Amino acid sequence: MKIIAQTLVAGLALTVLAGTASAQVIGKSEDQIRWRQSAYHVKAWSMGRIKANVEGTYNKDQVIQAANVIQAIANSGMGALYQPGTGSGKGWKETRAKAELFTDKEGVGKVAMAFNKEANEMAKVAATGDAAAVKAQFGKLGEACKGCHEKFRKDE
Amino acid sequence: MKIIAQTLVAGLALTVLAGTASAQVIGKSEDQIRWRQSAYHVKAWSMGRIKANVEGTYNKDQVIQAANVIQAIANSGMGALYQPGTGSGKGWKETRAKAELFTDKEGVGKVAMAFNKEANEMAKVAATGDAAAVKAQFGKLGEACKGCHEKFRKDE
Repeated sequence: MKIIAQTLVAGLALTVLAGTASAQVIGKSEDQIRWRQSAYHVKAWSMGRIKANVEGTYNKDQVIQAANVIQAIANSGMGALYQPGTGSGKGWKETRAKAELFTDKEGVGKVAMAFNKEANEMAKVAATGDAAAVKAQFGKLGEACKGCHEKFRKDE
Repeated sequence: MKIIAQTLVAGLALTVLAGTASAQVIGKSEDQIRWRQSAYHVKAWSMGRIKANVEGTYNKDQVIQAANVIQAIANSGMGALYQPGTGSGKGWKETRAKAELFTDKEGVGKVAMAFNKEANEMAKVAATGDAAAVKAQFGKLGEACKGCHEKFRKDE
């Protein structure tokens, strides 16, 4: 799963802001919102698993599983789920996407690129089984998640 | 992301049916149900993307992205989300897990192993960019999904 983060993130930003003709876009508005909410919750589950491992008994395989899931979703091009018209509406629940997520191309590209970088690094570090390094990288990845939440996600 | 399917599936079956002490279990019952529903919806999104590509204009990168997501979730050990007590209750919605999913160790192991095999193969085939081979493998993967749905998932 070797992918150049920068290309993908550029793709994400482009897809978020303009849509691309190069890849299939699927789903109605509510499907896209539900799928992206699902993807965030799968990432939250995986982050929770890594946290439990670095704070409790460390299980290398479990951390690898969780990191690989986060990496695959980070590289999935899920920007395709932010088509025009999906800035409001309900998937599993009302979307918390801020309007700026659909307009601030530079800002979105920046947080998306930061997240992809740390997610790819997390998968690499997890593979080593070095619990201390995983703990440090987990902190960086959490900050990258927060970078987007703070700028582009409404409070509950 | 090289993982031996059999080991993981054995882990899945064990975790589903007995729980294991070897890995951290996180989340309350409703969290586990919501996370697994989220994982299935992320897989459904990814399957839909592959379908759109084999039926429409083929985009190699998008198929790889989708196949990698399915593979990572298949290998995530999400059997850990089927702890005792999660056979009923609400995540995003009421769980559709049948009681047999928590009791039929052999049957669960069989469908889980079939799914993991086809998901790992899908990622390999996607990487080749051979649209016809992807289409054939997509059919096999869909059958593997159905194998579990028919046996262990309640109708809507």
